[in-house]
Amino acid sequence: MQGGANAQFSAVPMNLMNLKEKNSADYIVTGYWSQKAAEEAKKYGNVNLVLPKSSNLNGIPSKSEWNLDPNASYVYYCCNETISGIEFNYVPECGDVPLVCDASSNFLSKLLDINKFGCIFASAQKNVGPAGLAVVIIREDLLGHQLSYTPSVFDYKILAKNNSLYNTPPTYGIYISGLVFDWLKSKGGLESIQAANQRKALLLYETIDSSNEFYSSAIQKENRSRMNITFRIKKDGVLNEDLEKKFISEADKRYSMRELKGHRSVGGIRVSLYNAITEDHVKTLVKFMKEFQLEQL
Amino acid sequence: MQGGANAQFSAVPMNLMNLKEKNSADYIVTGYWSQKAAEEAKKYGNVNLVLPKSSNLNGIPSKSEWNLDPNASYVYYCCNETISGIEFNYVPECGDVPLVCDASSNFLSKLLDINKFGCIFASAQKNVGPAGLAVVIIREDLLGHQLSYTPSVFDYKILAKNNSLYNTPPTYGIYISGLVFDWLKSKGGLESIQAANQRKALLLYETIDSSNEFYSSAIQKENRSRMNITFRIKKDGVLNEDLEKKFISEADKRYSMRELKGHRSVGGIRVSLYNAITEDHVKTLVKFMKEFQLEQL
Repeated sequence: MQGGANAQFSAVPMNLMNLKEKNSADYIVTGYWSQKAAEEAKKYGNVNLVLPKSSNLNGIPSKSEWNLDPNASYVYYCCNETISGIEFNYVPECGDVPLVCDASSNFLSKLLDINKFGCIFASAQKNVGPAGLAVVIIREDLLGHQLSYTPSVFDYKILAKNNSLYNTPPTYGIYISGLVFDWLKSKGGLESIQAANQRKALLLYETIDSSNEFYSSAIQKENRSRMNITFRIKKDGVLNEDLEKKFISEADKRYSMRELKGHRSVGGIRVSLYNAITEDHVKTLVKFMKEFQLEQL
Repeated sequence: MQGGANAQFSAVPMNLMNLKEKNSADYIVTGYWSQKAAEEAKKYGNVNLVLPKSSNLNGIPSKSEWNLDPNASYVYYCCNETISGIEFNYVPECGDVPLVCDASSNFLSKLLDINKFGCIFASAQKNVGPAGLAVVIIREDLLGHQLSYTPSVFDYKILAKNNSLYNTPPTYGIYISGLVFDWLKSKGGLESIQAANQRKALLLYETIDSSNEFYSSAIQKENRSRMNITFRIKKDGVLNEDLEKKFISEADKRYSMRELKGHRSVGGIRVSLYNAITEDHVKTLVKFMKEFQLEQL
């Protein structure tokens, strides 16, 4: 459908908040995007924050600390947080409560058991196609519970009934996405891209972890994102923002590697390893990282 | 912003229905699209139908028949109805009540005095660029009246405050639109395209009107659209759908002219003369129309 992840932050509660009488949904907030979705959902009902409040989210708290509501209309989470670089390496089990997932930033990066979800959505602009459209997959029995004031273009039931052609779709974006799907298949499909993505992330994290803390990742190992690898640069054990700036400009100057700057809200370095990034690209980056570290001795 | 005209059918009332206490808006329904917008607006407040009920809308009733409400939050109209082929050749005067216009199908086809509008929007896919985005122009003093449950991506105030970058915009569509704007300028701008569009429509309507009713337009002359010219084909004074089918297939066979079929809800022939159609294209069509008519004698 038209619109990216932000549109779904409203569309999901407008379609599902009503599923149970309590008009309440569980939100697992693990970073910027799930936080934004939870804020938006408050317009449409009660939002229960599942995780204990934590000012410094460097991983996903173990399930024993979660506060799930068995009477929630749905459980919402974002399976990959792009800004901090946190990724679920499992699909949460929520019993009978439908699971809703924002998979915008790792959709089509790995195999996924779609049966585990009530609703899963992904904006296109990471691994699917150009910005301006989103893929929404929803269980048929969850359709038809939309709030009375849901815009028709956000009403999943209307969209499903009209075969996603209720309004003129973003045709060009869909065409390009089709070409990307063909490319994915030609590369061996999801199984093959999943293995490549695993190797890419592993190579980079190994370089970080073997750098004697020159490079350091703040994220707990089991929650580290394969898509967005964030790290800081230290000198003599102390965070060094000047070195980070130099790292970013030298990467561009020497190897034309760009967009390595971390999100302004967290700083540091962020490397995004979406499907379009090849293993050779990562090898070049690792070469540069080692070279850059040596130069600072 | 992301989303076409259908998204604005919800966004307009969500942002403006609240402007006055009465929570009521005036809708001038002249065809399919304004009808659709009026239906959607009912979710958000009271909708007052300005025109007298008429089952056969072949023109725009004179203003003496309009039922405008001076306490309406806004007056809504669609300045060109694509299905029937009705176009306003003036901008309605509504006193102090803000005027909202769906200009999706004639935006950038002619000069427009933007000062006359409270809000004007246009989906891109006629004269602007690829489907999936809309241009929205709104008076600053009308911002900030959104209903509490308005999705953030539909909230014109949030979009304006963020310079239309609240969410990732449909980048590729915006890029292509920029190229179209350059092309428009290179053609002499709106003044020049307006004159060309006028000549194109005139040539076609003259051909229809001088065909001894072989071709006939149902639309009152002063309300005939310059963008979408609809007509029927008669034989011996009687509507002949077989001839219409033949007309459509022969136009394709002989001159590769396609998409001449009228909308399924009205039938007949529809010729769309958006900016991309040249005067030579219209001359070829007119040549074919004369040739086709002669063959039926």
